[in-house]
Amino acid sequence: MSFEADLKQTARDVDSLLDALMPPDRARARRVVDAMRYASLGQGKRLRPFFVVETARLLGADREGALRTGAALECVHCYSLVHDDLPAMDDDDLRRGKPTTHIAFDEATAILAGDGLLTFAFEILSEPETHADAAVRAELVLELARAAGKAGMVGGQMLDLQAETNGTPLGLDDIVLLQNLKTGALFRYALVAPAILAGADDGVRGALETYADRIGLAFQIADDILDEEGDAAVTGKRTGKDADAGKATFVQLLGLEGARARARELVSEACAALDRFGAEAETLREAARFIVERRN
Amino acid sequence: MSFEADLKQTARDVDSLLDALMPPDRARARRVVDAMRYASLGQGKRLRPFFVVETARLLGADREGALRTGAALECVHCYSLVHDDLPAMDDDDLRRGKPTTHIAFDEATAILAGDGLLTFAFEILSEPETHADAAVRAELVLELARAAGKAGMVGGQMLDLQAETNGTPLGLDDIVLLQNLKTGALFRYALVAPAILAGADDGVRGALETYADRIGLAFQIADDILDEEGDAAVTGKRTGKDADAGKATFVQLLGLEGARARARELVSEACAALDRFGAEAETLREAARFIVERRN
Repeated sequence: MSFEADLKQTARDVDSLLDALMPPDRARARRVVDAMRYASLGQGKRLRPFFVVETARLLGADREGALRTGAALECVHCYSLVHDDLPAMDDDDLRRGKPTTHIAFDEATAILAGDGLLTFAFEILSEPETHADAAVRAELVLELARAAGKAGMVGGQMLDLQAETNGTPLGLDDIVLLQNLKTGALFRYALVAPAILAGADDGVRGALETYADRIGLAFQIADDILDEEGDAAVTGKRTGKDADAGKATFVQLLGLEGARARARELVSEACAALDRFGAEAETLREAARFIVERRN
Repeated sequence: MSFEADLKQTARDVDSLLDALMPPDRARARRVVDAMRYASLGQGKRLRPFFVVETARLLGADREGALRTGAALECVHCYSLVHDDLPAMDDDDLRRGKPTTHIAFDEATAILAGDGLLTFAFEILSEPETHADAAVRAELVLELARAAGKAGMVGGQMLDLQAETNGTPLGLDDIVLLQNLKTGALFRYALVAPAILAGADDGVRGALETYADRIGLAFQIADDILDEEGDAAVTGKRTGKDADAGKATFVQLLGLEGARARARELVSEACAALDRFGAEAETLREAARFIVERRN
């Protein structure tokens, strides 16, 4: 199967699983469940779950457990989008071509839906269906909590907000650190979680972490390039926004050509980190290239 | 040791532990860690951790693991207060006699601090220091995620917001359901978690759940009574607020005397549920009485 067909298949499978795990609530709290479903179903490329599922395949881990782990990771990703889009944060009204959750529902419901998605991720991971070995489940929870928390995504988001407030644009080292926390931590989890599921050794895990770090940064550089030259009709969100807000972007720091060159370099490094897996890792190499070549 | 001395001792121990687990971040994300510390340290009665620690003692479970579990539960409780106080939710500017987190910091930082505390709870629980057996840690995570999520606290908070928006005051059954989710779920966890830590049998767990359900509801009725007749200088928050907001309260539905009688009845039922533990459970019985007699 080609990479793009693989990606679409995983997206469908993750969607079906989330739909089944999070059915509309017939009881009175239905509204928050509707908002959680709105924020997480039927949209997005599902890149993070794809990396979980594809890496699990590479390592010989069970697909069902990988899909559940990917679904949990996607819940965390979606919660972060819902909260980041809030008026007090980035104040975005459009996401993936749809009104953001606080626009489609209301601000209070969006806050609760984000809280609910974050909490649900840990519920999914800690259920026996994710892996028969409780030690694996506990480690999946621990690593996700670290990736999402104050020393990971939450910390990165704080740095991002502070950089905006301070009005002094970040330098290249700062922006790399910020992105490493803000988006890199979840990409790293997408590659580390399958290693946990498969009981892989430290060498395998280290190689996957190197790959993850490179594609995480490449992903962010590509995002900045899309933001600079993109078209809202294609990207599904407002473009030029970061530059307008005075945020330092990789494009500003490196120039458009410099940013493109750096992204390509990172993809090469990511692919090289997979050498030990040989031809079996070709889909992951295609995925790395896709990340910098995508149009949205 | 008397119950009140016990309660104070546990509060000090939980505070020291949280302080150690969550040191000020010297790195650039310091602000969100400061806000997490502001929202969780040096305040509150620490009732929920007290129930975890005292019940663990009753069941012969390790105190250190119970303190960590109590600290995690307190993180979830504090996160819920931070988010509930936000302008888009209850819009409160005073909590435990101090400015709420979004007043002391700002709204974006408060949203992130709440997210950080919720996430950190799962990090604490899933670390090996909480219990040597990973199956115990995974079950602690699963039960906390269920108690805090859409079928627990988040669901209850949604019902509460909807009741306000709809403008039709809730009936007694509805308000009992709402409180059972909104505050009852975390009280239940405070009693169930020690049973998990101790590997207690279903009979013990069932008795503790009955006790928890009764004190959870009694706690909320006592809150409504305090809100009706309380003094902001003593309670540390604005009083009469729920009635002003048109929220149905137990006092409105049962009258002041009726609410007091119902609270006393629930305390009796809670104490009776502990019969199987004999005199060893006397501190928990005192705690149940304290819950309805407290002045703040």
